[in-house]
Amino acid sequence: MMRIDVLSLFPEMFKAVFEQSILKKAADSGSVSYDVTNFRDYAENKHQRVDDYLYGGGAGMLLMAQPIFDAVAALRKRSDSKPRIVMMTPQGERYQQRHAENLAKEDHLIFLCGHYEGFDERIREQLVTDEISIGDYVLTGGELASMVVIDSVVRLLPGVLGNETSAHTDSFSNGLLEHPQYTRPADFRGLKVPDALISGNHALVDEWRHKESLRRTYLRRPDLLSDRDITEQEAKWLEEFKRESEE
Amino acid sequence: MMRIDVLSLFPEMFKAVFEQSILKKAADSGSVSYDVTNFRDYAENKHQRVDDYLYGGGAGMLLMAQPIFDAVAALRKRSDSKPRIVMMTPQGERYQQRHAENLAKEDHLIFLCGHYEGFDERIREQLVTDEISIGDYVLTGGELASMVVIDSVVRLLPGVLGNETSAHTDSFSNGLLEHPQYTRPADFRGLKVPDALISGNHALVDEWRHKESLRRTYLRRPDLLSDRDITEQEAKWLEEFKRESEE
Repeated sequence: MMRIDVLSLFPEMFKAVFEQSILKKAADSGSVSYDVTNFRDYAENKHQRVDDYLYGGGAGMLLMAQPIFDAVAALRKRSDSKPRIVMMTPQGERYQQRHAENLAKEDHLIFLCGHYEGFDERIREQLVTDEISIGDYVLTGGELASMVVIDSVVRLLPGVLGNETSAHTDSFSNGLLEHPQYTRPADFRGLKVPDALISGNHALVDEWRHKESLRRTYLRRPDLLSDRDITEQEAKWLEEFKRESEE
Repeated sequence: MMRIDVLSLFPEMFKAVFEQSILKKAADSGSVSYDVTNFRDYAENKHQRVDDYLYGGGAGMLLMAQPIFDAVAALRKRSDSKPRIVMMTPQGERYQQRHAENLAKEDHLIFLCGHYEGFDERIREQLVTDEISIGDYVLTGGELASMVVIDSVVRLLPGVLGNETSAHTDSFSNGLLEHPQYTRPADFRGLKVPDALISGNHALVDEWRHKESLRRTYLRRPDLLSDRDITEQEAKWLEEFKRESEE
């Protein structure tokens, strides 16, 4: 069973998320356990302060080393395996699917979430094994970012995804974006499903999907095509898309 | 006041998040209001189904057009302004800080969250104004992704960020990653703060911070430097970092 610990000053934020959907099912089935620790409980000073001013001056506050060092030390004792200690920070490595696959192999993950504030550098240098950014945008804290990472990891644990989830949600699994998809009715308020999809001809359906996947990738994420071995058929389609966009 | 509506089959997930920290303060102060609608309530069929099989075959299910079209129509009536209708999807444009700044200017945002399943293409074509992906990784649903976007937008609304938040959390505001930061004690279990930061010499502190910001950006996110006008001093430092990494 994977053990996931979160260190946060806002433990309440996690409750409803861990109690819904896949994250809950994964815990119920014994694939994972979650625990959220408020590291303020580890502050040794009288007023349970967890932050202090910056050396060298400047606006804002910084999370102090002591409460986080001691909270992590306590969490390490709860598990036999060496944990990966993940700091959520805009300066981290940009998170991608391969990181999720890599984290999903671990036994114990500890997530450090700051809120408004940065971390004292000694936390980063001495404790942390992974610094992760979920994207180039600014969030109020690391809580939502850690939930995103946890969701992406837990869904990959053995036995967690059932029939309700299909490979078709995995836009990146074959290196192309997903083709357009339609369900009933075939005519919704005058908006119709493409003929190929209701033709009953499997080869035609497959060709339509492959071509439209490629078209969407070409139009929206051409960067994904540069890493890809292009087949002869795909090269022809790409020429066609190019001509169309030049018309 | 900005109005934020969310369409989701898991409305419970949002409660604890909207009731904490900046998102709650922003609502309390009247900068924003949130409402989460379960679009299952709009399903016209007998069993309140919201999904159906794919035309052309394949695993998984797809969210149907009708419940979402009708839920959006109802939400449009609640506001005088034309809403931006945001679909959370791995095929969307990769979300960045400039998108947050752009969305923060709107009066009404409606977020469509799928869960496990994709959307019927007609929703995408006819309703949606923005398709957003928060990153190249697979999540169970759009809920966490929409919370991330909402957090990044709400913190930018006028009057929402108070003194508790400082510019130093904005790693991308000057195009460089943040320099290392330290708070008390100067010696934590043998780990010391760099001399420059406790020198009391402002010019020395500023120089140290600028240089270490540049170093961190050079080491971790060299892509950010290609968009930047490099000063003469920065060029010298970059030469120094390059020599060091070759040694």
